[in-house]
Amino acid sequence: MNPLLKEIGHNPLLWLLAFVPVVFVTQKLTPAAHTLLFLLAVLAIVPLAALLSHATESVAAKTGDAVGGLLNATLGNLTELVIAFTAVRAGQYMLVKASIAGAIVTNTLFMLGASFLLGGLKHHVQEFNRVNARLQAGLLFLATVALLVPSAVSEADSAPAAAFAQHLSVGLSVLLIVAYGLGLVFTLKTHREIFGSPEHGEGDEAPWPLGLALATLAGVTVLVALVSEVFVESVQGAALELGMTPAFVGFIVVALVGGAAEMASAFSGARKNRLDLSVGIALGSAAQIALFVAPVLVLLSYVIGPTPMSIQFWPGAVVMILLSTMTAAMVTNSGRSAWFIGALALLVYATFAMTLYLLPPRTP
Amino acid sequence: MNPLLKEIGHNPLLWLLAFVPVVFVTQKLTPAAHTLLFLLAVLAIVPLAALLSHATESVAAKTGDAVGGLLNATLGNLTELVIAFTAVRAGQYMLVKASIAGAIVTNTLFMLGASFLLGGLKHHVQEFNRVNARLQAGLLFLATVALLVPSAVSEADSAPAAAFAQHLSVGLSVLLIVAYGLGLVFTLKTHREIFGSPEHGEGDEAPWPLGLALATLAGVTVLVALVSEVFVESVQGAALELGMTPAFVGFIVVALVGGAAEMASAFSGARKNRLDLSVGIALGSAAQIALFVAPVLVLLSYVIGPTPMSIQFWPGAVVMILLSTMTAAMVTNSGRSAWFIGALALLVYATFAMTLYLLPPRTP
Amino acid sequence: MNPLLKEIGHNPLLWLLAFVPVVFVTQKLTPAAHTLLFLLAVLAIVPLAALLSHATESVAAKTGDAVGGLLNATLGNLTELVIAFTAVRAGQYMLVKASIAGAIVTNTLFMLGASFLLGGLKHHVQEFNRVNARLQAGLLFLATVALLVPSAVSEADSAPAAAFAQHLSVGLSVLLIVAYGLGLVFTLKTHREIFGSPEHGEGDEAPWPLGLALATLAGVTVLVALVSEVFVESVQGAALELGMTPAFVGFIVVALVGGAAEMASAFSGARKNRLDLSVGIALGSAAQIALFVAPVLVLLSYVIGPTPMSIQFWPGAVVMILLSTMTAAMVTNSGRSAWFIGALALLVYATFAMTLYLLPPRTP
Repeated sequence: MNPLLKEIGHNPLLWLLAFVPVVFVTQKLTPAAHTLLFLLAVLAIVPLAALLSHATESVAAKTGDAVGGLLNATLGNLTELVIAFTAVRAGQYMLVKASIAGAIVTNTLFMLGASFLLGGLKHHVQEFNRVNARLQAGLLFLATVALLVPSAVSEADSAPAAAFAQHLSVGLSVLLIVAYGLGLVFTLKTHREIFGSPEHGEGDEAPWPLGLALATLAGVTVLVALVSEVFVESVQGAALELGMTPAFVGFIVVALVGGAAEMASAFSGARKNRLDLSVGIALGSAAQIALFVAPVLVLLSYVIGPTPMSIQFWPGAVVMILLSTMTAAMVTNSGRSAWFIGALALLVYATFAMTLYLLPPRTP
Repeated sequence: MNPLLKEIGHNPLLWLLAFVPVVFVTQKLTPAAHTLLFLLAVLAIVPLAALLSHATESVAAKTGDAVGGLLNATLGNLTELVIAFTAVRAGQYMLVKASIAGAIVTNTLFMLGASFLLGGLKHHVQEFNRVNARLQAGLLFLATVALLVPSAVSEADSAPAAAFAQHLSVGLSVLLIVAYGLGLVFTLKTHREIFGSPEHGEGDEAPWPLGLALATLAGVTVLVALVSEVFVESVQGAALELGMTPAFVGFIVVALVGGAAEMASAFSGARKNRLDLSVGIALGSAAQIALFVAPVLVLLSYVIGPTPMSIQFWPGAVVMILLSTMTAAMVTNSGRSAWFIGALALLVYATFAMTLYLLPPRTP
Repeated sequence: MNPLLKEIGHNPLLWLLAFVPVVFVTQKLTPAAHTLLFLLAVLAIVPLAALLSHATESVAAKTGDAVGGLLNATLGNLTELVIAFTAVRAGQYMLVKASIAGAIVTNTLFMLGASFLLGGLKHHVQEFNRVNARLQAGLLFLATVALLVPSAVSEADSAPAAAFAQHLSVGLSVLLIVAYGLGLVFTLKTHREIFGSPEHGEGDEAPWPLGLALATLAGVTVLVALVSEVFVESVQGAALELGMTPAFVGFIVVALVGGAAEMASAFSGARKNRLDLSVGIALGSAAQIALFVAPVLVLLSYVIGPTPMSIQFWPGAVVMILLSTMTAAMVTNSGRSAWFIGALALLVYATFAMTLYLLPPRTP
């Protein structure tokens, strides 16, 4: 357990692990203190996400490039997946969808924008491999189409037959997972020489031994699942008490919490002038959520949810995802970046956040 | 008649010509067998379209580049035009519009995507002249705007005055034809050196003598018109019997049938690493339908149709055309292609096809 | 006063200054002759706008680059600002918003398109610095998002709470002004070497002495304000009498009048093969109206208007702004231009103008 403890001693973010037991004790003592539980759960998830991400990288480093990349790709958003899994089991589909859409938008605009801004404040002009950015933007665009077309087409029909929505959701979910798989084959196998392997460059730190990494992976996943349960239970009560709209909490707060660990990696890459890494994490993660996490949750809802979950999103969320994808395509188009490009993406994000924050809550 | 018979002996696709007489005989005997007639008409149209396309190229090869290009461009979608003409005369405007929108979407996504995929499976990376792709994407974008703006603007007014829609349809049709004409002047006359002349590269086969080509052109056009009549009459009954929605038939089936011959050329070009040819056929054909065939049909409806046809499309169709145009712009932007780019375009198309296939039929 | 008189003698456009006194006399004599007053006001505003623009450049030339650029940028759309200011004071928010949206669309499509067309008719292919075009397109995109998101998001809520719209309008206005300011810092300070300083290249003519320039600035602003008052009062009556829809007048006529002086500069730059200048004026001016003039008017409406003005636009206007931004991004993407590119942008503009011209007036 030496490397784990050493890592904890080294990385102040991990000191927040102390909040994990605090969450469980507090829940036992005062189960109705929503805001307190919500804040404690947020503080506990952040270091767990960081550990999970580190363990995943260590496992990926041990296996070959192709398997490692696959592992990294499928486990990279484990935190989001576990949070959403808990919410699906509770039947809170509004929260699930808000957090999916929020994660896509936050990764695309906030993580990418802040990377460009932080990198640009240190380096005058930065360059990156735009081929990867284009691929991820293309995948995101496909996902946006899959979210957009059903409502655009059925809207005109004014008979939003439930059976139609369900069949279509299953079909589109399978299609998105296929697209994601083909994307992995393309980047990790047939055309890997074009993409380099920026996702592996993260490991400045020496990787952990495999046993430790796997044990951490298993243990931390259980902890994240338990804390997520507290989080999902308390989030709506907390939103009410804090005067935030549920849309703002689901879209912005959950996404920032779930992505905290990845953001730390992306920002540090940008400061070190390794923008390929930042772009890969930000857009790769967004594409993963849209083409892997979201459809898997739709399919899982048939097994673990109270009712099937459709893939149809609230129109406002679809518009924001579409605009985020367009912004990502625009700001990565030239393969060069400066601080203002990052500021622009952050301002688009600020527009969304401001609108959601001020949105009047629906009257039931 | 030697070259024609030689061509038929050479090209197995043309053996389907045997179905042309079968269609007429079957219609006489069992006029109510919609599904059978529909399938026979489909099988008969495919070889006729191939002949028509070959004859057009032969005529184009005889005349100079400019006149030839014009001929090729205006006769290239003759099959679609004749099918749609028959439907306009029958007043089946829903079918006309579905097949126009479907042809644009199918050429932009399916023909382009399958070309990239088939070419990419053989060649690691392929390059093409992106100037032409950009021009065609620009023309398609203009057409999309013309389809989009009337409904976007009048929607807010909630008084969709019929007179407004009619005047606007005529005005916009003239505008699109002017744009198409200017595009021809640009590519064939003032800036032809930028575009090369990929459209002429098709003729690996020796062209036919002019007399034969013209006679074929005339004879086959008449045959296509007669078969189209059977097709248009049987398509809706067949859709019902086959359990397909009319939207799916109009959008997907008719478009695939009408474009079969061009697709054969585009795919063979891609396999031979002549991607300029494939991109030119796919996007050029889509632009032609949007800026020439569609507006000509609107104007013709005043002369041959029971009532004037407007240029306003079903909102779902406009959304799909817009997304297709954006996809085309995205995948051709870099001037390079690999198999995954094609797969991406095909997956966007699959999203549309799946949605239309599952769409519940409108209850009247 | 020598240079001013010399300029007037030199520039036939300025002979229209004779209409300034005519406007005031006519208003005194026949205050109800809406159409006459409207036409006279148009004729009087055009030369005043030209003078204003010349005076601004002279002041900008005297100060350093950074301050000069700032001045040029903030005073460049003074005419539009004064017209809109007058309309805000009169509470004519529909006219204000139509003229803002119209100015953005007209500068983006008409001014840019006509520059490309006029330049392209003289020069076979023209090149320009696409970095600046990208930046301005990015700013325009941000503004479009800010106009689009509130309605897209609140639409679903069906409770368009007035308080929400107001708070959001103030927040988004501040955000847009911040974005505009950051854009100035980026182009004029931190990364000025990338952008050159095309905006200063205009001065073929020797600049005026500072005193004359400042006096002209002050005097002409007052005159524009007075004539604008006549314009705003007469425009709706004139629209009725001329059989034009208010939307067409606000969107097209006012925008063409307000931008006349800038257009003269942009077109002359394009003819002289200085396309950087034309692109800078057209897109820079559009971005300025969207990110500076519009939000300033929203904030000003709290002080000088009868009620607060929101930043929410008529959906049709938002769609046109979005399409214009996409067109601008598309046509400037390659950094090269030919006549057809300009024709394409003009045809998109013609689509808008035609639709607005034929739009049936709302029945109350």
